[in-house]
Amino acid sequence: VTSSRIYLVTDFGLDDEFVGVLHAVLARTAPEIPVVDLSHGIVPYDVAGGAALLARAAPHLGPGVVLAVVDPGVGTERRGVAIELVDDTGPRHLVGPDNGLLLEAAASLGGVVRAVELRRETRDAARGRTFDGRDLFAPAAGALAAGASLPQVGEAIAPETLVALEVARVTSRELEDGRVAIVATARFIDRFGNVALALPGEVLDSVRTVGLVARDEDALVRVADAFGDLEPGELGLLRDANDAVAVVVREGSAASRLRVAVGDRVELVGAFGRLP
Amino acid sequence: VTSSRIYLVTDFGLDDEFVGVLHAVLARTAPEIPVVDLSHGIVPYDVAGGAALLARAAPHLGPGVVLAVVDPGVGTERRGVAIELVDDTGPRHLVGPDNGLLLEAAASLGGVVRAVELRRETRDAARGRTFDGRDLFAPAAGALAAGASLPQVGEAIAPETLVALEVARVTSRELEDGRVAIVATARFIDRFGNVALALPGEVLDSVRTVGLVARDEDALVRVADAFGDLEPGELGLLRDANDAVAVVVREGSAASRLRVAVGDRVELVGAFGRLP
Amino acid sequence: VTSSRIYLVTDFGLDDEFVGVLHAVLARTAPEIPVVDLSHGIVPYDVAGGAALLARAAPHLGPGVVLAVVDPGVGTERRGVAIELVDDTGPRHLVGPDNGLLLEAAASLGGVVRAVELRRETRDAARGRTFDGRDLFAPAAGALAAGASLPQVGEAIAPETLVALEVARVTSRELEDGRVAIVATARFIDRFGNVALALPGEVLDSVRTVGLVARDEDALVRVADAFGDLEPGELGLLRDANDAVAVVVREGSAASRLRVAVGDRVELVGAFGRLP
Repeated sequence: VTSSRIYLVTDFGLDDEFVGVLHAVLARTAPEIPVVDLSHGIVPYDVAGGAALLARAAPHLGPGVVLAVVDPGVGTERRGVAIELVDDTGPRHLVGPDNGLLLEAAASLGGVVRAVELRRETRDAARGRTFDGRDLFAPAAGALAAGASLPQVGEAIAPETLVALEVARVTSRELEDGRVAIVATARFIDRFGNVALALPGEVLDSVRTVGLVARDEDALVRVADAFGDLEPGELGLLRDANDAVAVVVREGSAASRLRVAVGDRVELVGAFGRLP
Repeated sequence: VTSSRIYLVTDFGLDDEFVGVLHAVLARTAPEIPVVDLSHGIVPYDVAGGAALLARAAPHLGPGVVLAVVDPGVGTERRGVAIELVDDTGPRHLVGPDNGLLLEAAASLGGVVRAVELRRETRDAARGRTFDGRDLFAPAAGALAAGASLPQVGEAIAPETLVALEVARVTSRELEDGRVAIVATARFIDRFGNVALALPGEVLDSVRTVGLVARDEDALVRVADAFGDLEPGELGLLRDANDAVAVVVREGSAASRLRVAVGDRVELVGAFGRLP
Repeated sequence: VTSSRIYLVTDFGLDDEFVGVLHAVLARTAPEIPVVDLSHGIVPYDVAGGAALLARAAPHLGPGVVLAVVDPGVGTERRGVAIELVDDTGPRHLVGPDNGLLLEAAASLGGVVRAVELRRETRDAARGRTFDGRDLFAPAAGALAAGASLPQVGEAIAPETLVALEVARVTSRELEDGRVAIVATARFIDRFGNVALALPGEVLDSVRTVGLVARDEDALVRVADAFGDLEPGELGLLRDANDAVAVVVREGSAASRLRVAVGDRVELVGAFGRLP
């Protein structure tokens, strides 16, 4: 019995057969390794959204291989890559397109020790060039999960040549009254409407109330330890399950209340001790 | 090879990584036990809907552990619990919040023999207090599935202190013409628009036609044994796959036709022999 | 360790417990065989859509059993069937209703060698007659996956009596200028809005540009090898991952651009060498 798993992240959705076909390819190449679907609900082509989801999930994954496909550049010259991590308490390898999808998770897992550009097996014209998830990435991920080494699936490339995404910036300025105004980006909105900001949770350590300015809201809100510290329907801030600052409404949707979407900016004003 | 499984029910949806992270935690704590997703489509915070779904699925489950998380009270003082059942032909343990989510299924599986309040492992501040599914319930469910005993995951509590949900009431009255009018609640509407009532199927045993009064309908309908006994598009009643009375339209949606939602009341008038 | 799998295709969706209950029944009847969800997102009652999805996935499946349930006729006299295929490099058996759902995949996998009408186990009145997926098809699929032979699950029937679907027709005519006009049906629209036509990909082999006429479009478009050969936002044609002609927009939705739905006709005008 192995605790090794192949972890999937894609923007394929679950209505079509694409995810099932990935599972089928993996069943042939790594029959003994169970597959875990982390998410197939990434917005189509949203590489940054996929990278963020993978980074949130990464600390909780056990040994195995991550196979991630959000790939607007499929069929172009963008490389397919496999990455090997320094640390092997979590997944050892990440496989996917070289478009930044994998790197934030790789960094949070200790960093890249080496990488390869995936070798394409014989090209079958009848398969087209539109489904590298099936034809390139899944075979490589299956091989690695089944014990292949990195050189067996591709040619070595320099890790520093891997494409990285721009990181969301946080800005802050000191106000005349001594308080600090931080402007951060909404990075992730979950099913419940909680709005996670690109801002580490420790920012909230020393404050009890914060002025919050977003598209439809300008309010003084409480900093809570948990949803249960707020009244039902109350807007507040908390340190969320991934250690980010989140704007929340108890038993309600903060995203609807504020009318913010991923990428929108939210301003927080308070007596913040630590600055991001 | 084991036929044991960990069965999941949540309101997490499948777009975010939450379900995948539960799987990852379970892969670490019970690597040899496959996980079955019963549903992650419960309406957010709908404890009663989750309890009803779990009760419908319960009779079909084999040995193992149920892990259910619909938890509007996460981070409050509500308890996290594990329940052990009398009968062990189906799942032996149910794990989740003590908010009524588990009890109807537990009753339908023979009843509770003992229960514990889950012990919280060391609190990690960086994890926040918002994702007990990951931090409290999944580790306990995994431990039980891997062979731990109830005392190993928590402190004994009296089963009669477990929080129960109110049961949907059915009312009936005899009419002057000798027929009976039953008012029942729509308890579950499936993907096909079939409307299951909180009314046992045997009520239909001795009737062939029934007067049906709902928001948008006042009609005499036939009692069928199967969809195929109705004409395409015909409204009717049948004993459904969970042995409840269901209002159906053959190859159509009864919920759309009647414009009823879960919780709405439907009146049935007929020469019912057995009363609920 | 087995590479055998049970592959599922249904129109059940993932919000209700139906899919989870199928998994539970399979866990009891074939505990050692992992289950792969190909899709549960078939439009309710869309037998042709389910048949097309299964045919697209079929070439990629390994050994095992396909269990497919899109079954508007449940509870009527339509037969439940299990089919055995000539070739055993892919799945050996297909199980489902005899309504055409299985036959296109069966043909693409080498054809049917024998078939049975499924034997119904003791009828339990309390289970109703509305969920043959749980009560008839899953037990049979599980038994076959666990090693049962076809006669153990049903009575032999003649393969030529199996119900087949009508095949989408393609028409073509030669124009005065020597070019050819082909009218084909939109057969499948995926999550990304790519519109696959019921037209083999080789039709595009010798053409570089094609006149495309659909509901909202009358344009000369390029034939590409891959999305990357088009400009972002450009409409084009390519041979897709299932070797069909597809109308696509790079990083956009061709279905939205053309406002076409499955079943709509699209006309292509070009100097086609091979006719369908």
